[in-house]
Amino acid sequence: MRALVIHAARDLRVEDRDPGRLGAGQVMVRVKAGGICGSDLHYFNHGGFGVIKLQEPMILGHEVAGEIIEIASDVSSLSLGDQVAVNPSRPCAHCRYCLQGLPNQCVDMRFYGSAMRMPHVQGAFRELLVCDAVQCEAAMNATAAQLALVEPFAVALHAISRAGPLLGQRILITGCGPIGALVVAAARFHGAAEIIVTDVVDEPLAIARTLGADCTINVATEPETLAALAADKGSVGVMFECSGNERALRAGLDVMQPRGIVVQLGLGGDVSLPQNLVVAKEISIMGSFRFHAEFALAVRLIDERKVDLQPLLATSFGLEEAKQAFEMANDRRQAMKVQLVF
Amino acid sequence: MRALVIHAARDLRVEDRDPGRLGAGQVMVRVKAGGICGSDLHYFNHGGFGVIKLQEPMILGHEVAGEIIEIASDVSSLSLGDQVAVNPSRPCAHCRYCLQGLPNQCVDMRFYGSAMRMPHVQGAFRELLVCDAVQCEAAMNATAAQLALVEPFAVALHAISRAGPLLGQRILITGCGPIGALVVAAARFHGAAEIIVTDVVDEPLAIARTLGADCTINVATEPETLAALAADKGSVGVMFECSGNERALRAGLDVMQPRGIVVQLGLGGDVSLPQNLVVAKEISIMGSFRFHAEFALAVRLIDERKVDLQPLLATSFGLEEAKQAFEMANDRRQAMKVQLVF
Amino acid sequence: MRALVIHAARDLRVEDRDPGRLGAGQVMVRVKAGGICGSDLHYFNHGGFGVIKLQEPMILGHEVAGEIIEIASDVSSLSLGDQVAVNPSRPCAHCRYCLQGLPNQCVDMRFYGSAMRMPHVQGAFRELLVCDAVQCEAAMNATAAQLALVEPFAVALHAISRAGPLLGQRILITGCGPIGALVVAAARFHGAAEIIVTDVVDEPLAIARTLGADCTINVATEPETLAALAADKGSVGVMFECSGNERALRAGLDVMQPRGIVVQLGLGGDVSLPQNLVVAKEISIMGSFRFHAEFALAVRLIDERKVDLQPLLATSFGLEEAKQAFEMANDRRQAMKVQLVF
Amino acid sequence: MRALVIHAARDLRVEDRDPGRLGAGQVMVRVKAGGICGSDLHYFNHGGFGVIKLQEPMILGHEVAGEIIEIASDVSSLSLGDQVAVNPSRPCAHCRYCLQGLPNQCVDMRFYGSAMRMPHVQGAFRELLVCDAVQCEAAMNATAAQLALVEPFAVALHAISRAGPLLGQRILITGCGPIGALVVAAARFHGAAEIIVTDVVDEPLAIARTLGADCTINVATEPETLAALAADKGSVGVMFECSGNERALRAGLDVMQPRGIVVQLGLGGDVSLPQNLVVAKEISIMGSFRFHAEFALAVRLIDERKVDLQPLLATSFGLEEAKQAFEMANDRRQAMKVQLVF
Repeated sequence: MRALVIHAARDLRVEDRDPGRLGAGQVMVRVKAGGICGSDLHYFNHGGFGVIKLQEPMILGHEVAGEIIEIASDVSSLSLGDQVAVNPSRPCAHCRYCLQGLPNQCVDMRFYGSAMRMPHVQGAFRELLVCDAVQCEAAMNATAAQLALVEPFAVALHAISRAGPLLGQRILITGCGPIGALVVAAARFHGAAEIIVTDVVDEPLAIARTLGADCTINVATEPETLAALAADKGSVGVMFECSGNERALRAGLDVMQPRGIVVQLGLGGDVSLPQNLVVAKEISIMGSFRFHAEFALAVRLIDERKVDLQPLLATSFGLEEAKQAFEMANDRRQAMKVQLVF
Repeated sequence: MRALVIHAARDLRVEDRDPGRLGAGQVMVRVKAGGICGSDLHYFNHGGFGVIKLQEPMILGHEVAGEIIEIASDVSSLSLGDQVAVNPSRPCAHCRYCLQGLPNQCVDMRFYGSAMRMPHVQGAFRELLVCDAVQCEAAMNATAAQLALVEPFAVALHAISRAGPLLGQRILITGCGPIGALVVAAARFHGAAEIIVTDVVDEPLAIARTLGADCTINVATEPETLAALAADKGSVGVMFECSGNERALRAGLDVMQPRGIVVQLGLGGDVSLPQNLVVAKEISIMGSFRFHAEFALAVRLIDERKVDLQPLLATSFGLEEAKQAFEMANDRRQAMKVQLVF
Repeated sequence: MRALVIHAARDLRVEDRDPGRLGAGQVMVRVKAGGICGSDLHYFNHGGFGVIKLQEPMILGHEVAGEIIEIASDVSSLSLGDQVAVNPSRPCAHCRYCLQGLPNQCVDMRFYGSAMRMPHVQGAFRELLVCDAVQCEAAMNATAAQLALVEPFAVALHAISRAGPLLGQRILITGCGPIGALVVAAARFHGAAEIIVTDVVDEPLAIARTLGADCTINVATEPETLAALAADKGSVGVMFECSGNERALRAGLDVMQPRGIVVQLGLGGDVSLPQNLVVAKEISIMGSFRFHAEFALAVRLIDERKVDLQPLLATSFGLEEAKQAFEMANDRRQAMKVQLVF
Repeated sequence: MRALVIHAARDLRVEDRDPGRLGAGQVMVRVKAGGICGSDLHYFNHGGFGVIKLQEPMILGHEVAGEIIEIASDVSSLSLGDQVAVNPSRPCAHCRYCLQGLPNQCVDMRFYGSAMRMPHVQGAFRELLVCDAVQCEAAMNATAAQLALVEPFAVALHAISRAGPLLGQRILITGCGPIGALVVAAARFHGAAEIIVTDVVDEPLAIARTLGADCTINVATEPETLAALAADKGSVGVMFECSGNERALRAGLDVMQPRGIVVQLGLGGDVSLPQNLVVAKEISIMGSFRFHAEFALAVRLIDERKVDLQPLLATSFGLEEAKQAFEMANDRRQAMKVQLVF
């Protein structure tokens, strides 16, 4: 079977690999769709991010969906032909974090397409994928393209879950890439009264409005619109920082109301924080990392059409056009979420 | 009556002032003891801090206790001769934050000895103080010196309250000035299982141990002792950052366990934060500012001897020796909390 | 002007009353629509409920909306012609609960159409109503009939708020009167993954489905459907008990999962509770009473069409047909929410 | 080796049993002390409780401590001669509750000395006990008698943990058996400002005062003392109901302040609850069941002398005097906690 392998920055190859054989509790998935994520782009553009660097060839990809085509004899939860989203997260289920209900903090996590460990954990941009049955969430109605959105939507739902109740809150979402856009949909679903989204380009903001944003602000061209919310100590209850950009975080802190909550999703290295403002307004800044129970929830909400994520889906490319797909995914003006089809 | 007035950095004068007359709901307090706070020191050393600058002469002081010597006819909650701690915080009781139960976030706060408003709110380092009866919390057993610790202890209790339950947690307190030391006592009272305190000088750490710290670390001389706690993603549940120092905050983040909580009390301007670590470990950083209900609680705990803050009390000076008192308060090797007597 | 006055059980009279004159901060509302609430029905059917009994004639009604027709000179927040929902709740804004942000627990509450105090607080089923400007929330799009749903919807939103985040939860709502039905809409808005509603008559359950219920169960005819959810210690995360019925509560407790939350809204006197089950599954049962900030939120959600409550609106009657209206309101098979028009 | 076996109500026998052999990960404990618990007494007095009935002979006991005398070769966490408290709780570590961090809700729990499953899980009142190394928490300073208090103290700490922060709260504890008394110590440790304890006999209340109660009330002889706390909607913030008695619960609800929290530990079958009061004051009633992480914490707090539970220890009996021990444990006037020595 064919797989999409990164050897070094910009060195992306379609290679033939052995799909392997099923062990106990496993299934084989014929992968149909896979979304290109920001971390895939980091490997493509820079060969890694921060201290994490490619040290050997690695199959990319962790946002995939497909069809069950083979099932180990001890698996009863799935059937041949089931359409599934595949959870790329494999916590150990034994460490203290797993047993505290925090598997996303597992000290022995194996996550698809990640160079954090050596040997690297191979990813899911491949035609055939052998995985554990418990990684597969079956759907009834959703398309493969929609199911390939499950993973990033689970990231958004986890961030929403970190924030606590949104009922009646004014929400600010800074950075409208795929994660920011999915947080719009998730915040709308979880009862936000008003959703404001900021970015520095217009095209993603238009998509945010179709996903439920009440107000979008291009802070490159109209920064004063956001700043106006700073009156009377600020009026935003919960902020989701999805850009990893220091200026976005600082501009957001100015408009947070006292006791406001900032959920940080964007990754951006060191940032300079106005400590005195955080203290004086008693703001909480909390990190949000990946997901766990939210994966099954994401499948359900998409499959039952309780949320509609179709506006995020732009273009898809065949495996042989992968480089083109990655180039387009690099340009947020052209496409929100680019997918590969297998 | 005499009062301690700051005119500019290092320009501290004892001046004669009119004590004023009682209005409805008011009492007159003969001030007996007053603690020198970090913000008093900032006015003394620098004429202000950050954007807040002295623009007119101001009586310093907001940590005072004394005796009721006159009572307006409509006040029934206090008696002549009552020993009281005086709450320097006067929220408006009408704004939205006051009505949300967050009076420390009042948009119209008048706080003793603060140059934040113009005209400045005059402070309480004076022989006679006319104040509202509701600002006075009476005690039965405590000395004036102990009652002058109520205000900073209320700050510490508020930080503890922000952190949520401490039951069984390993606590890290960075920075062992008076606030850090009082957080030790408060964390001990609120069920911490283990309290670790760091500073860069030894003398305050010795006091921290008498207040309940299980372990103290001089991070200037033995930084590796703290760093050892970083194994397995970290092992500290709750951190109270009381130094305002960027290095203390960053060293603390390294040893926080996933989902750990950092309560920020120290004020220090902009700090550089490792955003990716906050995200990946899902750490919460939350500001804590002043206090409200904790003032009455502080009186009670001190007065009923449920906490013993005596180890903090070092030396006291008469009003005429104020400059000497401020110089000593500047040197944490010599004294934890310096008080004036009136 | 005419008003609807209850003198005793079943003794409902349209009487002429003096509308009164505006004081400072007040407005006059021409009342257009008023919903009949369960407590109005209790006065009509029984002359009161529990220990609260009518002791003098009282104007009924607390779910009203209308138009501003006169404004005191010191009021700037409203304009002539504004369509408003009128908040029947008037907390004192001075007691300790008001200052803790819990005005619904005010110890000096004056609530329209309530015999809890003597003299009774007169209600709002009247043609003209002088009230405080702060009681009025203006809307742009909503009809008077929709705005007369604001008060009970605020009750539902408050219950949702008490429950904490609903994201991804399976919800059970027992009792599908107007409050139960409004909790369906509120739970849907606040991110419930699955909403199950029970009642003993079919007609309200059909309305619940139009408001967002995923599954409805007539527990009179098919009790085993609910009982099936009890497997593996139960599978319901949050329950809203809206019937006040002991059997509904107990049947619900059986299907709650460990650490599940029961929000009790229904009023029903003493109920027998299986204490050992509450202990062993560590269930939380929490009361929810009236509302506060949720009133403004309810106006906003209705006015911006973020929720659609139209399915609740059945029939309306003129003031002279009030008795007929109350009789119909007594029969849940005929009508969910009966309104009066003025 | 000898063990204490219950065959039926009042039929308690010392019998010879095979201690068994160590498996992987196991150790052998020479049991030194074992506390008689309320559930042991239920088997002794009634042959069970509620629906749980003895169906075969069962070794009683789950509050034991002893010394490690043999260790499997793969165990490195313990040494010969270690003094340990033995955790009687063995969750499966695989079910959804275990993986949610709620092992006390494990659907496949095996708990020492419990007739809930068939065959019954044999208990720990025996001279030699083979158990998993992970069940043993070693101590440095504590006596076996003190370590045999770890299990019920863990129950108390879990209840405290359920309640959330106690900082500055007025606490009511109803029922002063061993659990109620241990909750006194735990609430004191977790920052309660004031602890009030009620019972219907005087002797346990005297012990409660030595453990930290500020005020004790014999509600049989002076019920009005408690009732006085009901003024202004009540003044108790958190209540721990440790009696299982309906009258205690109802009397407590009357004095709870709005939004107060009741943690229910006592088991007592069906109780009649004033639903309208729970609704109107928005009280939360939450069950608390057993413990998990609190077991290790209990060892630590006892071993480091952060709490002193010595006042609970009354008398101890040899195995051959077991019947006498159970009779004394039945009489709360004579002894708080009766222990067996082996």
